[in-house]
Amino acid sequence: MSRPRSKLTQSFPGCAVEATLSLMDGKWKGVILYHLFQGGTLRFSDLRRRLPNVTQRMLTKQLRELEGCGVIARTVFPVVPPRVDYALTPLGLSLQPVVAALKSWGDAHSVCEDGALRFVTVRAPKPEEQPLRRSA
Amino acid sequence: MSRPRSKLTQSFPGCAVEATLSLMDGKWKGVILYHLFQGGTLRFSDLRRRLPNVTQRMLTKQLRELEGCGVIARTVFPVVPPRVDYALTPLGLSLQPVVAALKSWGDAHSVCEDGALRFVTVRAPKPEEQPLRRSA
Repeated sequence: MSRPRSKLTQSFPGCAVEATLSLMDGKWKGVILYHLFQGGTLRFSDLRRRLPNVTQRMLTKQLRELEGCGVIARTVFPVVPPRVDYALTPLGLSLQPVVAALKSWGDAHSVCEDGALRFVTVRAPKPEEQPLRRSA
Repeated sequence: MSRPRSKLTQSFPGCAVEATLSLMDGKWKGVILYHLFQGGTLRFSDLRRRLPNVTQRMLTKQLRELEGCGVIARTVFPVVPPRVDYALTPLGLSLQPVVAALKSWGDAHSVCEDGALRFVTVRAPKPEEQPLRRSA
């Protein structure tokens, strides 16, 4: 937790917002937490499969930082080949409303077009979300 | 919105979480939004007063990025000295549940000791939060 933003957190009102963000502001931490909420205990290989665009090195780094904050627990099983499980701790589980709010807002207000992300007040429904018309 | 994390967002499940985080992952954006929720329309000088540890340059940069995402609106009044107001747009106002969840979790689970931020499952109440004892 050596990020500069953390150093000033809690020195003035509203900083609880920054404190929570400082926990998640590494790349992919939010999405790692999301998958641990979805999948429960996951092996490193499960996480790699769910996050195909994240390099192994980056995934390892983010998992270590989340472990360092006490949000996830890492369990190593002494087997061959080695097995490493990741799961949310009670502290991590307490983030459920935060991850849910981030997901819900992103679903409703973010649009990805031509590889660029933009935000909209009201998102047009995707084709598969449009209500089906009944044939007469 | 040229952050690398944004580029891959929405290419796999859970990325709505990252989309929302990408909007807030600049330094102090969360706390700027918090103060706009608290204070309504604020002048640049109001924001500077509420965020005394943020440099003018950094505050300007973060406000421009939030404006670029369509989350806040900047109004310039042609007066001397110049007056510039910032307010949440309808898109920004829609972030209320997100900012509330971030604040609530940070209040409950973050502790700042000796300038270092750490996270706890259950936070001990601060002295002013402890229930008052009645004198007998």
